[in-house]
Amino acid sequence: MAFDINETGRAAKDAAFSLQALSCDEKNKALCAVADALIKNSALIISENAKDVAAAKEKGTSPALIDRLCLDEKRIGDMAVGVRQVAGLSDPIGELIDKWERPNGLRIEKIKVPMGVIGIIYESRPNVTSDAFSLCFKTGNAVILRGGSDAINSNTAIVKIIREALESVDITPDAVSLITDTSRDVANEMMRLDKYIDLLIPRGGAGLIRNVVENATVPVIETGTGNCHIFVDESADIDMAIDIIFNAKTQRMGVCNACESLLVHEKIAEKAIPAICKSLKTKDIEIRAGQKAFTLVPDSAADMIPATEEDYGTEFLGPVISLQIVSDVDEAIAHINRYTTHHSEAIITKDAANAEKFLNGVDSACVYFNASTRFTDGFEFGFGAEIGISTQKLHARGPMGLNELTSYKYKIYGDGQVRG
Amino acid sequence: MAFDINETGRAAKDAAFSLQALSCDEKNKALCAVADALIKNSALIISENAKDVAAAKEKGTSPALIDRLCLDEKRIGDMAVGVRQVAGLSDPIGELIDKWERPNGLRIEKIKVPMGVIGIIYESRPNVTSDAFSLCFKTGNAVILRGGSDAINSNTAIVKIIREALESVDITPDAVSLITDTSRDVANEMMRLDKYIDLLIPRGGAGLIRNVVENATVPVIETGTGNCHIFVDESADIDMAIDIIFNAKTQRMGVCNACESLLVHEKIAEKAIPAICKSLKTKDIEIRAGQKAFTLVPDSAADMIPATEEDYGTEFLGPVISLQIVSDVDEAIAHINRYTTHHSEAIITKDAANAEKFLNGVDSACVYFNASTRFTDGFEFGFGAEIGISTQKLHARGPMGLNELTSYKYKIYGDGQVRG
Repeated sequence: MAFDINETGRAAKDAAFSLQALSCDEKNKALCAVADALIKNSALIISENAKDVAAAKEKGTSPALIDRLCLDEKRIGDMAVGVRQVAGLSDPIGELIDKWERPNGLRIEKIKVPMGVIGIIYESRPNVTSDAFSLCFKTGNAVILRGGSDAINSNTAIVKIIREALESVDITPDAVSLITDTSRDVANEMMRLDKYIDLLIPRGGAGLIRNVVENATVPVIETGTGNCHIFVDESADIDMAIDIIFNAKTQRMGVCNACESLLVHEKIAEKAIPAICKSLKTKDIEIRAGQKAFTLVPDSAADMIPATEEDYGTEFLGPVISLQIVSDVDEAIAHINRYTTHHSEAIITKDAANAEKFLNGVDSACVYFNASTRFTDGFEFGFGAEIGISTQKLHARGPMGLNELTSYKYKIYGDGQVRG
Repeated sequence: MAFDINETGRAAKDAAFSLQALSCDEKNKALCAVADALIKNSALIISENAKDVAAAKEKGTSPALIDRLCLDEKRIGDMAVGVRQVAGLSDPIGELIDKWERPNGLRIEKIKVPMGVIGIIYESRPNVTSDAFSLCFKTGNAVILRGGSDAINSNTAIVKIIREALESVDITPDAVSLITDTSRDVANEMMRLDKYIDLLIPRGGAGLIRNVVENATVPVIETGTGNCHIFVDESADIDMAIDIIFNAKTQRMGVCNACESLLVHEKIAEKAIPAICKSLKTKDIEIRAGQKAFTLVPDSAADMIPATEEDYGTEFLGPVISLQIVSDVDEAIAHINRYTTHHSEAIITKDAANAEKFLNGVDSACVYFNASTRFTDGFEFGFGAEIGISTQKLHARGPMGLNELTSYKYKIYGDGQVRG
């Protein structure tokens, strides 16, 4: 029988109406039941996961990707811990954002409410399944998950276990649904299900996200791609710059808050570039530099290769970084605003005025003064959770925690007021 | 020469970078210059408007629509007053939303910033042109306007005057652009210009809005359509109910916050419905009622005609209202959540518990207890302005004023922190 996305949407919308009325205690109790059930049923998850892993090996999937796919007792334990941590976070739903009274006596209250139904399209590890569920559930949202076909058996088992755990505490299992037909057609139908889905969050590579933006009629939050820059200003502490660049480029290369491009003030280039190159070369980072770097710092020529225009706009997600020389902070800002994906950028400087100019002028979600771009993360920000990092300006920008999964409504109290 | 939407987008994006840095005083000075220029050049606006009016008459446009199109000294004066009022509002840009310090010493500030470039697609009166410009400009946004072809000469004149006024105070005229090619192709290109446009707000009928939602890759805020309900509960004060229903249905019929559907508790139907019918009949309102109303209140049968299923989902925008009998507040909530456009709904009751159940359970932007739905309006809420009324949950919900035209960014201050 064909998968009926409309039926899934309708059921999720119905579930959302009952979820928005749950108390924080009821939600936390359910999350704990889910965590327990994941542990208790880990043998089922592992045996279903083994099918996905076998199929991936059959297809010749790379060992790195197979490692991301694999679930064992330890990883399932981590999933359960993650669900329990969400239970421990404070619940934003029902929070009074603002209230005021109008001259006609109307009292207006602005209250945080759930979004309703959230769709998540992801291609990554199966632990995203329990993670996305717990964040959406804690904020009173129903969630429709569409994971990748590579993890379909694992995801199906995890969602089945979550649904049974919800039923065991008298909560509608339609709080979470999995789209088990991973065909492109069904994904496209999901993107256009604005009748039932209030928000769509794609999590994955640039291709997935662009596909969703191109095709969705459901409102989307773009997440994830990060062509992050670090600008070393004329007055920078060079040791600090080296530490921050080394951390932002090499601590974890495949992540969206890693540094992909360096800008160096021309007056510090001769001193800074050889030291930066030496540091990055210890991790075999390829440095693709503009012509001016070769001219100003000929001694470092052997450590650099010429950059193409395209390099400045590329999120490498690996051991490559682009480098450009700029004549001042204004040129740095202009370069970044031209090439950035609006994720995270940093200035290293001792000049507070230049720092403020940079922080105000760069059009990105997170702008840093003397710190690594790697801090753009819901946990590092203290949100206690993260559903993704928004690179758009509508609704949420930067790391998204529980608050960013909420909307609001106005409750207006009168005693018979009519408009004159 | 063909209209180059890419060039318009690029220029607007460049303008947005300079606008975000303007002080509140600079913006207010520019708005006053614009208001002065509109008055000073009213003869030009009137003569260009006359071309649009003549073309509309030629086409056989209805007198009501021609009246909406017409500009005279008085209406241009009102436009200028509107621009000056926006200058008088407080400026949200740069406002500190939140700040905190992390254990590692990073200080995080969350600051209100402009959206960047806002696109407005509208089909209504030419005064929207100055109105939309002033709200976007006050919040540091560049705006690209795409008005209807019926008002093209009027809009062209107004935008030319605004651009010249901006230049006279040394502000980039690209803060506002008008798409002078009103073909559908160019509108479609605009909707897909996410490279330059950060937010698209369609203002107009349901058809226009649906077209934008279907086609846009730029993030959209849906505005405007309102199938608004009033529920008369068992314990309602009938006189209050009649006043509120009369106001919400008849005070202005063509607007989105007018009442389109009545729900009446079965236990009050016999007393309430004849009085409601009598009141609405003074304004010749057609009442389309469900079968149960005919059964319960046969005496009112002559004042009602049978409703179809479709009537419950229709925004009439005229002298028609649907009516259904419900057995309790739960059935009222379920009916509304099934048929509403999520705009504004009201409960008339003396029962505070039922009121709270209704306000929490109804999934709409604005929910009223004993007051008219007609108060859903930026001015009535005290925002001092309104760019539209959002019926979606992402970013903004309900009346949108200056605050809703802003995004935020995180400024993070460190002293060399790297991630461990």
